[in-house]
Amino acid sequence: MQFLSDNAARVHPKVWAAMQAADAPDKPYDNDALSQRLDAAFSGLFARDVAALWVSSGTAANSLALTTLVQPHGGVICHREAHIEMDECGAPGFYTHGAKLLLAEGAGAKLTADAIGAVLGGITRGVHQVPAQAISITQASEYGLTYAAAELGAIGTLAKERGLGLHMDGARFANAVASLGCPPAEAAGPVDVLSFGCTKNGGMDADALVLFDPAQADLVRWRRKRGGHLQSKGRFLAAQVLALIDGDLWLDNARAANAAAAEIAAGAKDRLLYPVEANEVFVRLAAPERAALRAQGFQFYDWDDTTARMVAAWDTPQDHAVALGKAIAGL
Amino acid sequence: MQFLSDNAARVHPKVWAAMQAADAPDKPYDNDALSQRLDAAFSGLFARDVAALWVSSGTAANSLALTTLVQPHGGVICHREAHIEMDECGAPGFYTHGAKLLLAEGAGAKLTADAIGAVLGGITRGVHQVPAQAISITQASEYGLTYAAAELGAIGTLAKERGLGLHMDGARFANAVASLGCPPAEAAGPVDVLSFGCTKNGGMDADALVLFDPAQADLVRWRRKRGGHLQSKGRFLAAQVLALIDGDLWLDNARAANAAAAEIAAGAKDRLLYPVEANEVFVRLAAPERAALRAQGFQFYDWDDTTARMVAAWDTPQDHAVALGKAIAGL
Amino acid sequence: MQFLSDNAARVHPKVWAAMQAADAPDKPYDNDALSQRLDAAFSGLFARDVAALWVSSGTAANSLALTTLVQPHGGVICHREAHIEMDECGAPGFYTHGAKLLLAEGAGAKLTADAIGAVLGGITRGVHQVPAQAISITQASEYGLTYAAAELGAIGTLAKERGLGLHMDGARFANAVASLGCPPAEAAGPVDVLSFGCTKNGGMDADALVLFDPAQADLVRWRRKRGGHLQSKGRFLAAQVLALIDGDLWLDNARAANAAAAEIAAGAKDRLLYPVEANEVFVRLAAPERAALRAQGFQFYDWDDTTARMVAAWDTPQDHAVALGKAIAGL
Amino acid sequence: MQFLSDNAARVHPKVWAAMQAADAPDKPYDNDALSQRLDAAFSGLFARDVAALWVSSGTAANSLALTTLVQPHGGVICHREAHIEMDECGAPGFYTHGAKLLLAEGAGAKLTADAIGAVLGGITRGVHQVPAQAISITQASEYGLTYAAAELGAIGTLAKERGLGLHMDGARFANAVASLGCPPAEAAGPVDVLSFGCTKNGGMDADALVLFDPAQADLVRWRRKRGGHLQSKGRFLAAQVLALIDGDLWLDNARAANAAAAEIAAGAKDRLLYPVEANEVFVRLAAPERAALRAQGFQFYDWDDTTARMVAAWDTPQDHAVALGKAIAGL
Repeated sequence: MQFLSDNAARVHPKVWAAMQAADAPDKPYDNDALSQRLDAAFSGLFARDVAALWVSSGTAANSLALTTLVQPHGGVICHREAHIEMDECGAPGFYTHGAKLLLAEGAGAKLTADAIGAVLGGITRGVHQVPAQAISITQASEYGLTYAAAELGAIGTLAKERGLGLHMDGARFANAVASLGCPPAEAAGPVDVLSFGCTKNGGMDADALVLFDPAQADLVRWRRKRGGHLQSKGRFLAAQVLALIDGDLWLDNARAANAAAAEIAAGAKDRLLYPVEANEVFVRLAAPERAALRAQGFQFYDWDDTTARMVAAWDTPQDHAVALGKAIAGL
Repeated sequence: MQFLSDNAARVHPKVWAAMQAADAPDKPYDNDALSQRLDAAFSGLFARDVAALWVSSGTAANSLALTTLVQPHGGVICHREAHIEMDECGAPGFYTHGAKLLLAEGAGAKLTADAIGAVLGGITRGVHQVPAQAISITQASEYGLTYAAAELGAIGTLAKERGLGLHMDGARFANAVASLGCPPAEAAGPVDVLSFGCTKNGGMDADALVLFDPAQADLVRWRRKRGGHLQSKGRFLAAQVLALIDGDLWLDNARAANAAAAEIAAGAKDRLLYPVEANEVFVRLAAPERAALRAQGFQFYDWDDTTARMVAAWDTPQDHAVALGKAIAGL
Repeated sequence: MQFLSDNAARVHPKVWAAMQAADAPDKPYDNDALSQRLDAAFSGLFARDVAALWVSSGTAANSLALTTLVQPHGGVICHREAHIEMDECGAPGFYTHGAKLLLAEGAGAKLTADAIGAVLGGITRGVHQVPAQAISITQASEYGLTYAAAELGAIGTLAKERGLGLHMDGARFANAVASLGCPPAEAAGPVDVLSFGCTKNGGMDADALVLFDPAQADLVRWRRKRGGHLQSKGRFLAAQVLALIDGDLWLDNARAANAAAAEIAAGAKDRLLYPVEANEVFVRLAAPERAALRAQGFQFYDWDDTTARMVAAWDTPQDHAVALGKAIAGL
Repeated sequence: MQFLSDNAARVHPKVWAAMQAADAPDKPYDNDALSQRLDAAFSGLFARDVAALWVSSGTAANSLALTTLVQPHGGVICHREAHIEMDECGAPGFYTHGAKLLLAEGAGAKLTADAIGAVLGGITRGVHQVPAQAISITQASEYGLTYAAAELGAIGTLAKERGLGLHMDGARFANAVASLGCPPAEAAGPVDVLSFGCTKNGGMDADALVLFDPAQADLVRWRRKRGGHLQSKGRFLAAQVLALIDGDLWLDNARAANAAAAEIAAGAKDRLLYPVEANEVFVRLAAPERAALRAQGFQFYDWDDTTARMVAAWDTPQDHAVALGKAIAGL
């Protein structure tokens, strides 16, 4: 019973079908018919004109996104535990040619306007310090917490006042939207560019970059090619993304994952590090307790010495989740 | 009848089957069982200990390869028409943090020890000039020509004498090996690192980087992650590469493509820009002649004002190739 | 008798005096009174509002200049023998984070609109090629040739039509202005940013970057600091630059150097590789002829197997120049 | 009475004299006789074979130093308030092509082996995190504290055990040596590369980079040129550095500055944020107290809301320092 990562999940059958349907000669790179449909598909999803490009990893999506918001000598305010700071081996700095991550505090890896303001307040020495040029937040956060519309609005207002771009790492955007029960546009709020995750949510190796200012798309196209991410048979990535969008499969998958996480949470109760608002569950467990769960066949990740992380995916069997919840409750 | 690019070709059924067999939960990134098999598979292929990593594009493969051979202030000698110079939008410079491509001359986009020596001879002013640190050659070349063992040996000797690393862009390495009829190790010659193409040869979105000095693999692993190329479900890329290696499918596919190209060449005769040694055919054709061929249903690429490029792939129907050869002969 | 380089020349007494006058406590970096005077001094010189910043080398000036005109994925059209291509060890690529130099042809290291157009004509493959975003020319050129107003105008028109920025490497701008006998603004023509050389012309270690769009100055200030070029006692660099501007010392110095070069040219006659329009003289000399001159006490640089380069400076004794001219004539 | 910064101090008369003595034609760049003497001068100073190069700023010195110790994907452990983190606008990341500063804690901006170990302990996720490759410490620290031999030894032992390079930012190394009263080699301890400050200590615009592994010098020479820091009249920078070394002028100057700081400290007593071990004095002062001091003619820098920074230089008049000490005592 596997709760290690949603990266370990399978590819959804409809995604497989879409990929196989794409297996006919077409123009290379992103000149094929499917890639050309992405802008329209995401414009429909967000009810406004956007540009959308496929990329093959969330790290690439985040890094390319930041190139549209920050110069090499600038800085990006993000949470101390943001994925771009902790888990991407400096990729954002690589793609932005050195822009610095300026670390803010906040419970559950969420930023607030106040926390962002505290970072801004420390930048006072002109050319001797890296100037903040953008903010990056994660929806749902690295601890599985969602940003509500009002929270996004406050951050957006600050960003606008201070002339800062706003990026959202949406590796689990689907889980956030499913949890919030709002339109996608509301869950994205006032962001300029969104990394829209698909791989963890039933895809194989495709995510999407959604640019709410379509004029930035050309810049990303050059940088994507320069990063070696313009795959020659891009139609297969477009097919995955479109299959997830079509008929709201992305939301169905996310709801299934969230539901499984809720089962675990129901058993973990007071052991929860944070409320479970998406598909990740952080549970306080002593080492012997973890060993006991593993002895019962549950696989999960040690977050730190006192906490285990359990992640549900679109294909997590509901009975596995129920069993894990019960097992925790029974410790 | 499509001869635009081998990028436009389909994915081989055995590759599809291998990908679907990989669709079960396994460890993420490259910790899965399939990814762990790559070193052994390529060590067998080249009859020596090598390290091999999957990447999702040839541009990424070439760029990551060069990071093992050149420092940011160094230079890479390559042909004026090399893919890394002409078609990768500066990606090699991006990944190497500025290493310069030092351009050499040579018929058919092939380098010789003499042409490399001419570039080296112009580097005389110490710290004021970018120092050459590596050489990059393409097997088969951008005009579809192969390097024989003696040619590679001469380049390797020069590289060793001058302390230069040696990279081979093998986007069509399979076609070269099939054409040369030699063991893969002989077609790679004395290179330090090889970009081993799969995508054009029946794969979907996977190439391999083969490091003949396995000690360099760790560096590439860091840089691959930093470039956003460490896909979380890497098992699907490993599956593609392994499917092509298993049972020499890669060579069967290349032989089929080469045979189709030979049919076209047989009709083009004196119109050929270069002998056809792999799966690309460059044919001198005036504009009205090209229009006539297109009117007969043949699709191909205008290389320049006087030359058309026709590329055969593993799935090019033999009767299409025969028809194109005859159509050219009949002009 | 030294004709190796104007880099080997002495510091002008008025520059020394200005530096010593600056040796009192003042605000650090470029907040001192002298640094604050640069904008006005150069605005006066060019009869329009410009921003001007000191830098400590021509390579830094050129590299920082290009950061205002080109993005990391872009290209700069320059001559195949431009200083930025041949003599700066990749510094422009370092500062621009990888922008590529796109090499054009032209006699005497001068560009023409046609030569630039030929480079542009080869850029046809969209995102697969580095797009041209700027042009860089050298006034006087690397062979000591000047651009007249009409030549600059033609290049400027092309730049405007194609949306390209225009940079001028003016390491010997003083010598060009002295030679052309025109206002500085005319010798700069339609450029966006000018590297204004001082070190070769009586300074110690200061050049100036002149931004004809003052709005770009902030970007350069950040990048200058980030490059380690914001010296803490910047008042000494400002003092040098201002001393050369005050009373047109820069032109007096350049005229002296040009006059010395003219003496050499008068003796070299048909041996001249190019007309002598500034302070550099390129003379066809066989190896024994060079040896003969050296035996007479003349020091100069071997440009290549058949050509010697002799450079006059502001402090070249006129009798040394006359003697060299006669010695060449007497070979 | 000026205590703003040692950057605001004057150039020592012996440094002026040395620069003027250097004002004769010599070979350009660092091929002149003075630049060639640096290795020997510093080898004498440190009683072992070292290589030494001039640079024109401390930021350049630090950044170039780090290029010898860390790869673009690596990290440098430094204090949260280190100059390289706080005051250099990302220059270290620029020169190292993205290496990340990994921030450690410690009183008075000093690192300990334990604090470094805490950072290392957080790096556990392989290729997903930036690996630590070097440590950077500041002698004297950003709060004017010195590292004793035993402290350096403990850090050096850890560095060796973990395969980390060790850099020392010695912008005020002279003040530290004067304070410690030990040989320079002991104050440098086990470092691999030292930024040896001169500009703040009587120089004009020259610092030195001291490489305890001389084999690294070539790399720095290339990178220095590539950074635009290879000044064409380098003899003037070499002259400054040599003038300070000759006859231990550097130590005389530092002792004078330290003595002036001690006078201020004597008056500040319990208001001191840290013991005064070099030439910087951090004094707790309320806003009205600062205003009172300024009304008496003292200039200094507001470090933060509760602390003022006063810096003495080689040329601080002793009576000014005494007066400031008394004024603080009299508050």
